[in-house]
Amino acid sequence: MDVTTIGGLILGFLMMGCALAFMGMSGEGGVNLAGFIDPPAIMMVLGGGAAVMLVGFPLPRVLSMFPIAKKLFFRKKENPAELIQSVVKLAEVARRDGLLALEKLTKDIKDPFVALGIQMAVDGIKPEIVEEIMRREIESMETRHHEGRKVLETVGRCGPAFGMIATLLGLVMMLGNLSNAASIGPSMAVALIGTLYGAVTANLICIPMAEKLSCLNHEEVLIKEIVLRGVLSIQSGDSPRVVEQKLITFLPPKMRPSREAAA
Amino acid sequence: MDVTTIGGLILGFLMMGCALAFMGMSGEGGVNLAGFIDPPAIMMVLGGGAAVMLVGFPLPRVLSMFPIAKKLFFRKKENPAELIQSVVKLAEVARRDGLLALEKLTKDIKDPFVALGIQMAVDGIKPEIVEEIMRREIESMETRHHEGRKVLETVGRCGPAFGMIATLLGLVMMLGNLSNAASIGPSMAVALIGTLYGAVTANLICIPMAEKLSCLNHEEVLIKEIVLRGVLSIQSGDSPRVVEQKLITFLPPKMRPSREAAA
Amino acid sequence: MDVTTIGGLILGFLMMGCALAFMGMSGEGGVNLAGFIDPPAIMMVLGGGAAVMLVGFPLPRVLSMFPIAKKLFFRKKENPAELIQSVVKLAEVARRDGLLALEKLTKDIKDPFVALGIQMAVDGIKPEIVEEIMRREIESMETRHHEGRKVLETVGRCGPAFGMIATLLGLVMMLGNLSNAASIGPSMAVALIGTLYGAVTANLICIPMAEKLSCLNHEEVLIKEIVLRGVLSIQSGDSPRVVEQKLITFLPPKMRPSREAAA
Amino acid sequence: MDVTTIGGLILGFLMMGCALAFMGMSGEGGVNLAGFIDPPAIMMVLGGGAAVMLVGFPLPRVLSMFPIAKKLFFRKKENPAELIQSVVKLAEVARRDGLLALEKLTKDIKDPFVALGIQMAVDGIKPEIVEEIMRREIESMETRHHEGRKVLETVGRCGPAFGMIATLLGLVMMLGNLSNAASIGPSMAVALIGTLYGAVTANLICIPMAEKLSCLNHEEVLIKEIVLRGVLSIQSGDSPRVVEQKLITFLPPKMRPSREAAA
Amino acid sequence: MDVTTIGGLILGFLMMGCALAFMGMSGEGGVNLAGFIDPPAIMMVLGGGAAVMLVGFPLPRVLSMFPIAKKLFFRKKENPAELIQSVVKLAEVARRDGLLALEKLTKDIKDPFVALGIQMAVDGIKPEIVEEIMRREIESMETRHHEGRKVLETVGRCGPAFGMIATLLGLVMMLGNLSNAASIGPSMAVALIGTLYGAVTANLICIPMAEKLSCLNHEEVLIKEIVLRGVLSIQSGDSPRVVEQKLITFLPPKMRPSREAAA
Repeated sequence: MDVTTIGGLILGFLMMGCALAFMGMSGEGGVNLAGFIDPPAIMMVLGGGAAVMLVGFPLPRVLSMFPIAKKLFFRKKENPAELIQSVVKLAEVARRDGLLALEKLTKDIKDPFVALGIQMAVDGIKPEIVEEIMRREIESMETRHHEGRKVLETVGRCGPAFGMIATLLGLVMMLGNLSNAASIGPSMAVALIGTLYGAVTANLICIPMAEKLSCLNHEEVLIKEIVLRGVLSIQSGDSPRVVEQKLITFLPPKMRPSREAAA
Repeated sequence: MDVTTIGGLILGFLMMGCALAFMGMSGEGGVNLAGFIDPPAIMMVLGGGAAVMLVGFPLPRVLSMFPIAKKLFFRKKENPAELIQSVVKLAEVARRDGLLALEKLTKDIKDPFVALGIQMAVDGIKPEIVEEIMRREIESMETRHHEGRKVLETVGRCGPAFGMIATLLGLVMMLGNLSNAASIGPSMAVALIGTLYGAVTANLICIPMAEKLSCLNHEEVLIKEIVLRGVLSIQSGDSPRVVEQKLITFLPPKMRPSREAAA
Repeated sequence: MDVTTIGGLILGFLMMGCALAFMGMSGEGGVNLAGFIDPPAIMMVLGGGAAVMLVGFPLPRVLSMFPIAKKLFFRKKENPAELIQSVVKLAEVARRDGLLALEKLTKDIKDPFVALGIQMAVDGIKPEIVEEIMRREIESMETRHHEGRKVLETVGRCGPAFGMIATLLGLVMMLGNLSNAASIGPSMAVALIGTLYGAVTANLICIPMAEKLSCLNHEEVLIKEIVLRGVLSIQSGDSPRVVEQKLITFLPPKMRPSREAAA
Repeated sequence: MDVTTIGGLILGFLMMGCALAFMGMSGEGGVNLAGFIDPPAIMMVLGGGAAVMLVGFPLPRVLSMFPIAKKLFFRKKENPAELIQSVVKLAEVARRDGLLALEKLTKDIKDPFVALGIQMAVDGIKPEIVEEIMRREIESMETRHHEGRKVLETVGRCGPAFGMIATLLGLVMMLGNLSNAASIGPSMAVALIGTLYGAVTANLICIPMAEKLSCLNHEEVLIKEIVLRGVLSIQSGDSPRVVEQKLITFLPPKMRPSREAAA
Repeated sequence: MDVTTIGGLILGFLMMGCALAFMGMSGEGGVNLAGFIDPPAIMMVLGGGAAVMLVGFPLPRVLSMFPIAKKLFFRKKENPAELIQSVVKLAEVARRDGLLALEKLTKDIKDPFVALGIQMAVDGIKPEIVEEIMRREIESMETRHHEGRKVLETVGRCGPAFGMIATLLGLVMMLGNLSNAASIGPSMAVALIGTLYGAVTANLICIPMAEKLSCLNHEEVLIKEIVLRGVLSIQSGDSPRVVEQKLITFLPPKMRPSREAAA
């Protein structure tokens, strides 16, 4: 589980609360947090975001955004160094007992991508075909991530506009019946809350989340690339030592065991 | 028929209505929806959008946008898995009775792109030429989609400006004759409606629709790519089993029948 | 002559007029169109645009923008289908009477690009050289178009700023001597006109015109590409039928005579 | 010397002066140009621009911007047609008296790039090496121009923000002590001047100048490319006529002597 | 140590101080610098920036930004000309006493990248492998720099929004209780400080710093490229003179010793 996303969101909202508390202390009136909850603006920003998703993307793509966005909160952090060790162990088995000996192990492999690769190697499928199929899986994963990110970015781009629309609706209503001068201030306060919601939605939620999805995608592609190279290396009969050497160059210097750490 | 586009638009406008209703309830006056219909602002945003289209694009391109935009509402969702099955059936006929046996079937093929490909294969045109002609059709389709999208994007980019122009016209008129102080509020309310229209036009309609056109384009290109590969595979005399295997890799993992589902 | 550009501009300005007329009817005062003509703002937006051109581009490039922009209003629409027919006729002559027989025809060819190509073919210049020289002409035409477009885009980008500068000048002057409270409204009205001009200049004129220049460029490049391929095909001794077949694939499906119309 | 840059700047400032004069005539008060000179805003925009340069770029790069920016005002306009003639003259000497005869001429060649190329040809350095070294000089010149442009663009991007910061400082000070209502107007006027300065700095100075630097770079690269091709052509023993023919294709159609002018 | 970054920041803040001092002198009240320190706005901008970092990037990446950002203040400026001399000295030893003689020297080499390269050359690893490993180090360094820059850019992009959120919070609170008209001015002043902070954060700090990181990256890549080429040149047995000639072409003209300075 990734606590930074939730932590960041909490920090952001906490800061708003603290800022308000501070303003309340220095001002004459106390803080009135309830005054910052404005149902029409919530409707407008949430509903507008949903409308943008529906108008802007086919339904399956909108729905597929949610499992992808879930990774922002609950991702099992994969350790590439451990993964390399487990691939090296498979290479040892293959070296000692032959490729077919891996067949028994495939049931124990939890990662479906590793299982797919080993199964194809065991089945004697040609290396080019194995690489093509595995690479297409990686690309299709990247496409899914990119699409999920695109939905978030589009909502982030239109979000402030829906906040502003809520503000405009409020202003037009207020200006339309100025009968009671005393209500101008509170009405404008309420109207501005829409703009506030739009700014928060885009800048605290959508834009940074789209950014993090891009980071997570790079990490997952790295993991899958290591698996792909490992399977191909095992299939070509490399010794476990060579498999390890080939895969280790994919790690950033800090995560490598030996002297290669540089610069 | 694609209900999400219409659904999204309805949701967007409904939300504005609900927000207004809510504001009316909490305010002293009732909701006055008619106050949000402002003919000069409608003229300005619609007319301005039309003017941008005419100044910005040759007439044939403007007109060709409408059949493309129609796909946003009435597209027949093609099922790539079914398409693959029908191509496999053609491959079976070709394998059993020879390529020429397909001639009789071409009349029954509704999709003109499949018919074009099969007809060329039956006519004995060289595979390179078949591929070149079919690929140029795909590219020309992509160009048409891209052009339609470009028109929408340009209108979406200039739309808010025309809303703002309506607001500026209103403000200048109001400020020009401030004789009656009581009319300032309502006049400003009316002026702001132009900005509201511009924001809605761009952020609820043009930008998301341009985004969805891009999605639909990718889907159609995938479909046509499957047809192209299928025709070439049939022409080269592949067995129906091989044709199916080749085409199935184009499907996303979820839509495939077998164990390839991964990651 | 292309009426859409002028038509679009007229439509845009007409809409502003109609919107103002409508506002005048619903308001108490009549419309005062003269109030929307503000010499300082005109100076600022036109002069600012000219200043941006001079500071931003060498003089020859600024001047060369005008013949290019003229195409937006007075372009002779070339018909690629007709062009193909005339190239096919040249191919027939070359086939019947030899390449040299084209020499007499070159004087009657109005299009200088066709004349250049045929002349080189007649002169016996090697096909590679003919292609290189003709392609460099196409590229140099694209560069000129691109440069003209760049000037328009830069003016469109800075235009709203100069409108805003006019508004700021007006506001600063007004705020500097607030002696007469009654003049605040009209002064602000006049100040806002600068912003209005800037928005119209950029969004109705510069941005869409730059967009159309890009469309026209693509059309002209297509025409010249057809000529280039036609000349090379004639030079290589292709039969008129083959020349036609080669060139026809450049047309969009709708403009082709036969069954290739698809998708 | 290039008068358009200075001319454009003068035109821009003149237009502001004229607009103000016109406003002064139509308004009741005369023009007070001194009111538009606001030392704090000048400090903020100039100092902010300098700060952005220092924070944003290493010192050598900031300093190297000035000789590059100087080209905007004092560039000797090179005539590519004349340059070609002088290269052809060198080719004639080389043809008549041998490559070594060029040695005596190198002292008279003012352009260091031509001198470098001829010297290397005389020294018998291999053509590949000559091309590599000369091309790296061109690339390094492009890099220097690009860096100078980047500095200007960054200042142009942050410039309006520093104008706005000046305005905000002024507004905060004014709002902080509203004791004297009469000073509100003049104080706001002064505050807005910062925004005015920022808009002028970015839109009249930085953005167009960065644009012109890009144009000048393209022109210089063209000139140097002609020299490079000429030196290689001389070195390979081409006849002066062939050298001229090869170089002339780099000129735009209008600048060529003969019939190639087309399209 | 690089004083320009700190110098630029000090200059920027100094200018704001001077502008305020000047305003204070010309206005009636003195300067009240304390009035520009607003704890809620500080909370909002700093906390918001931290929240954006946490939501937008995995924790390791956020943390790795700090050592990279440290280079903006404390970088040891490497002199490429000196580096070339030291590589040439290694080449001399290798030429005189053989590659293995370098082994003793590797302990004295401070730069880990040079040491890595020489060690691999001494170990007799194949040149292709040496190049691949060293190039991957360079790429991984570029990726780290790019990620650090991305964090800064995202904070710079969202920074102004958090300043605006602080302003909106203040405005909503103020408008909510307008009981005391006298407090409107000071309350608005305080509210605007949030916008001021956001503008300064983005335009004086984040955007220019991200720009400088990009410059520093280019410089470091150049240095490492020189090392890589030098190691390969030594390994291939080039004479010290040839090693020097090869490396010197990487220097900009001004830094080279001899006549190559041109253009």
